[in-house]
This record gives sequence, structure tokens and C-alpha cells, in this order.
Amino acid sequence: MVQIVKTIQQVRETVKAWKKAGLQVGLVPTMGYLHEGHQSLMAQAKAENDRVVTSIFVNPMQFGPTEDLASYPRDLDKDSLLCQQVGVDLIFHPEAEEMYSANFCSFVDMTGLTEELCGRSRPIHFRGVCTVVSKLFNIVQPDRAYFGQKDAQQLAVIRQMVNDLNINVQVVGCPIIREHDGLAKSSRNSYLDAEQRQAALCLYRAIQLGRKLMQQGEKQCAVIISQMENCILQEPMAKIDYISIVDASKLTPVERIDAPVLCAMAIYIGKTRLIDNFVFDL
Amino acid sequence: MVQIVKTIQQVRETVKAWKKAGLQVGLVPTMGYLHEGHQSLMAQAKAENDRVVTSIFVNPMQFGPTEDLASYPRDLDKDSLLCQQVGVDLIFHPEAEEMYSANFCSFVDMTGLTEELCGRSRPIHFRGVCTVVSKLFNIVQPDRAYFGQKDAQQLAVIRQMVNDLNINVQVVGCPIIREHDGLAKSSRNSYLDAEQRQAALCLYRAIQLGRKLMQQGEKQCAVIISQMENCILQEPMAKIDYISIVDASKLTPVERIDAPVLCAMAIYIGKTRLIDNFVFDL
Repeated sequence: MVQIVKTIQQVRETVKAWKKAGLQVGLVPTMGYLHEGHQSLMAQAKAENDRVVTSIFVNPMQFGPTEDLASYPRDLDKDSLLCQQVGVDLIFHPEAEEMYSANFCSFVDMTGLTEELCGRSRPIHFRGVCTVVSKLFNIVQPDRAYFGQKDAQQLAVIRQMVNDLNINVQVVGCPIIREHDGLAKSSRNSYLDAEQRQAALCLYRAIQLGRKLMQQGEKQCAVIISQMENCILQEPMAKIDYISIVDASKLTPVERIDAPVLCAMAIYIGKTRLIDNFVFDL
Repeated sequence: MVQIVKTIQQVRETVKAWKKAGLQVGLVPTMGYLHEGHQSLMAQAKAENDRVVTSIFVNPMQFGPTEDLASYPRDLDKDSLLCQQVGVDLIFHPEAEEMYSANFCSFVDMTGLTEELCGRSRPIHFRGVCTVVSKLFNIVQPDRAYFGQKDAQQLAVIRQMVNDLNINVQVVGCPIIREHDGLAKSSRNSYLDAEQRQAALCLYRAIQLGRKLMQQGEKQCAVIISQMENCILQEPMAKIDYISIVDASKLTPVERIDAPVLCAMAIYIGKTRLIDNFVFDL
């Protein structure tokens, strides 16, 4: 059975022994309730490293006061089984107190990349992400770390942080994994009842429409966004948080498509906030 | 002659070879214009490690817009000679562009410890310090890093950052080194003309007075601070920025001394801002 440890000290000791033996280490940071998206990250980590650590930690620091920290789904037994199947060597599953001492007051953040897209409706989210990922990098000291393209802004933010702060970890981005009907895999899909689950398909319809318009040569972002909005608005249960087309690396809004772009969206289905995106390379 | 390198890549390669050979590495981060204070840090680093890296970098990010970034004294030839004498193995002397790319936007900061003392008159200072020290730690990946007790708040802030972010570096604090007449060694002492240099002795007189009062059993911080202020005000060239007595670890102001305290002060002599402090342990 895959080993589960709860303390930073245990992780450090295990990884130290691996490094001493010359082994390369991959890290897959997660909040648990693992699905095939996480599984693909862990499988790629396993293929590219000698040992794989998966962290399972619902990080309080990246949730806003009105967000779903308390209700975020958790299932450690199922998670460890899935980790076991993919060949994960160590699960790091700390309590919040192990990660954040009573007098904790440091943080990592950035002045760019975090204002647009999800940063608008989740103002403190990326500070929490950068801080916890910094901590996990320092605890595990992996050679490589794996993040899903589904959280496109998170991936861009972490790449920027790693470059800016000279963190000695190779960041690997992995493609979005979808359900058979196109809905992007997400732990938050578990919040949806049957009717909402059906309604959530409007995200993928809008993604497909946006991509098709770009492939057909449409350059005006306003035209593309407007058609994607109409597509979403045909679903009465859906409420748009944002649909944006931004420069793929700087994440700044663009009006015309003449460099690679990220088209990203966040939609509420009931109280559940779902995200999806695609990158369009000319 | 001690080797001087200007790129992150060169530092990484050198340190990697040392680590492969099982050698322990000490780091002394400085802004150059080295004096006996820095020398004592480097000597201690040399005594406790197999190899010592000294970084010499006047970090723009820790200077406010009206501060002395442009005029900060620099003398690389003298610095390298001094490093050579103490047995430093590598000087890392990057240009600002090597440390901060054009699209740099990340930072490390904290919500506590930075508001009081120097943080009041230098609001962005510790963000710059935390960020550059994080970068240097990630570039050099030292076993130990050495900081002077003269910058007492900086030392406390770095210890907090290292604990909070699980940075795998042992932070070593070293005692204040003083001139024969008591003035704490500082690169900024070079700004003082002969008359100002004489006036600057009021700092040490106030430090001695404060310590004596505490040793004599005075517990009321207001009484101690008031007498230290009077001591400074007898020097017409001196202007007080702050004189504070704070909890030695939390850096929060205290009214009565019944736990270890840091007594810290910043004084202007002309345009030159000088700091000094002492820790009083019961």
C-alpha cells in the first residue's frame, strides 16, 4: 500500500533518502478527491521520475471567506487507492496546523497575471496557491512538478513564480482530461445533481464554438466572446462569471488574435463554479 | 584570487559541483561596500562550512523611491580583497537585469513583523528583502546563511520567512560589530562627514543608557524610551525616526519588560539614516 505521511519531517526524511540514492522525484500537488485528471498528472510524473509524491491538502489559504472550503469534497481512502494504482510512492496529507503554524504570516504573491480571469472573482486565491506551492516545493524539493492545464491561470502563475524566484523545479503542464461528453474533470463536478450535470455541458459547447470560430479565422475577440456568451445563455441554469481571451503568456486581455491566446471561462451552475479553457496557437 | 561570477547559471554550476563532492555551503548576502561587520559574518561562515558564497548586490527592490539607491556606496575591488582575506570561495555579483527580468512580478512578503520599527518609514523595504533573499536562497541553495544582528528586524523577518515557507536553510544571526568608539559598523557610515561622524555617537550613548536602565531593573518602556530620546535630543544634528521596545520574537510593542525585548532605533544625522539596537534578555 502507498505510504501516507502527515508531517513535513517524514516527507523530508523519505525524499532525502531517495536523493541520496540518486533518484529523481516528481511532485503532484492536489487538494484530493482525485479523478482521472489527477491520475494523468501522476502517471506522467511516474513516467518521468523515479519516485512520485502526491500531496493531498485542501489549502485554506486559497479559499475566500464565502467559498467552499468546508464543503470541498474529501475521500482519502479512494484517493490512496487511486494513487496506489498509478504507482505513487508517497502521499503527503498534512493537517492545516502542520502547514500553517499559529504565528504564520508570510506569503508569496505577484503583481501581474493574477488580476484578470479567476483573479477578479477570487482576489486572494493565487496568493494562497503561490504560498502553498512554494511551501510544497521547499518541503519536497522535487525535480519536476505537475499541474493541469485545466487550471490554466494557476499554471501560468506558477511558471512565473518559478522563473521570478529562481525556484529549481521544472514545471510540467498536462492536458485537460474530460468526461465522455466533454465536461472537464473536476472535483467540484461532484457538487452537481443530475439536472445541473446536464446543464454544465454548456461550458464544453462554448469551448468548442470558440475554438471553431478561431480555426475559421475569426480574429475579433469581441465577436468570439459574444457568440460564446450566447451559447452559455441558452442554458437557463448557467450564470457567467467571465469569458475572456487573453495573451497566452502574459494573461492580459487582447482585442485581436495575432499571437497565441488563452480563452478561459468560469460559469456558475447553481452555486457550483466551474472553469474550462483552451489555448489557440496560430 | 577569489572568483567573481555575474550569472545565476555560473553560481548554480559551481555550487552543484561542491554539493556533489559532499561539501557544505554557507551564504553571506550583502549589498557590498564591505566592512568588519560583513567580515565577521564571512569568517563565521567559513568556520562552519566547507565553502562560502558572498553575494554583492545592491537590490533595487528594497529601496523606496526617495531613498539612496543611486548613491549607495560601491567598491568591488576593495570588497573582493576583503573576501579574499577571509577565505570566501565565490562572489556572486549580478547586474539588476540578471536578478529581475523585464516581466518580473513575483514577491515574497509578510503580514506581521514588517509594520513596526523600520517598516513604518520604509514600507516596501522588507518585501524587497524577502524577495531577494528568497531568490538568493534558491540560486545558491546554501546549508547556512549569515545575517547581522545590526539589522535586527531583517534577521527576525528572514527567520519568520524561512520557518513559514519551510525553506531548507539554517539562518545564523551574528553580533553587531562596532567602531572603537561604539558606532555600529555600517556601509552608510561613509556618508558622514567628520562633524556628523562625531554626532552619530549619540546612537551608542542612547543604546548604552537604555541597556543600563533595563539592567538596573526599570520595567516601564515609556520611561526608558523617554530617557533615550532625551539623550538623542542633546545632539542638535540628530533627528529621531523611531526608538522602540518590542517583543524580541514578535516585534510587537510592549509596555512592560517581562519577556526578552528588542530595543531598536533609527536616527537621521543629516540625510543619513543610521540604525542600532540591543536585545535584553531577562
